[in-house]
Amino acid sequence: MRRVLSLTIGCAGLLAAGLAWQQHAQAQAEHRVVRIAEIEVDPQQLALYDAALREVIKTAVRSEPGVLALYAVSVKDHPEQIRVFEVYKNQKAYQLHLQTAHFRKYKAATQGMVRSLKLTDMDPILLARKR
Amino acid sequence: MRRVLSLTIGCAGLLAAGLAWQQHAQAQAEHRVVRIAEIEVDPQQLALYDAALREVIKTAVRSEPGVLALYAVSVKDHPEQIRVFEVYKNQKAYQLHLQTAHFRKYKAATQGMVRSLKLTDMDPILLARKR
Repeated sequence: MRRVLSLTIGCAGLLAAGLAWQQHAQAQAEHRVVRIAEIEVDPQQLALYDAALREVIKTAVRSEPGVLALYAVSVKDHPEQIRVFEVYKNQKAYQLHLQTAHFRKYKAATQGMVRSLKLTDMDPILLARKR
Repeated sequence: MRRVLSLTIGCAGLLAAGLAWQQHAQAQAEHRVVRIAEIEVDPQQLALYDAALREVIKTAVRSEPGVLALYAVSVKDHPEQIRVFEVYKNQKAYQLHLQTAHFRKYKAATQGMVRSLKLTDMDPILLARKR
């Protein structure tokens, strides 16, 4: 009887821990800062822009703990129409990113290459990916 | 002299292997199928739609080897304006996804909830994320 009771308490503990973890993960995900940037680049300067974009993305994801993902893509058959799907750990991480030397360098270097820039703040619903 | 030669050949081999790996990774990335889905949902049915979307995303990322990421977000303050950033391993993985029971169930269940759907095929530039 004692064994059954102990097993029951053990299971309940595991369930509670699992639930707590799930709630924790959910709370963390709710703090994620997600943005979609829509960028139109001067086609004449696309190669230069592309190099600057790759550099800032690589550096940010590698060196900033709070930059979780930067996915840069272009609309098929419209290489000058760029979208960046950006995921930051939280608001603080995003603010830190804006102040980094690599981001400032990218902004300064590409200023004359960008024809238009639209930033849309998003609320995460579910960010699921392979490990 | 022989040691220097052997070291040189060794370094060249490492460099070649590194370059081959980089080219391989690049070639793989070029085969990625990336899409952005823009979905407008009937606000009256948002809770039901949300549940169906979460279910199909969880099942697809967990059970399909070729579904690499499905990031669902909504425009801030417009929960009915949903965007899904989708990454598949290659074209075959995407075609397999469309035929799965969970995707078909999602499509059938949400048919009357979706007001508009715009799918844009994207070319990957750089998909960078934390491990």
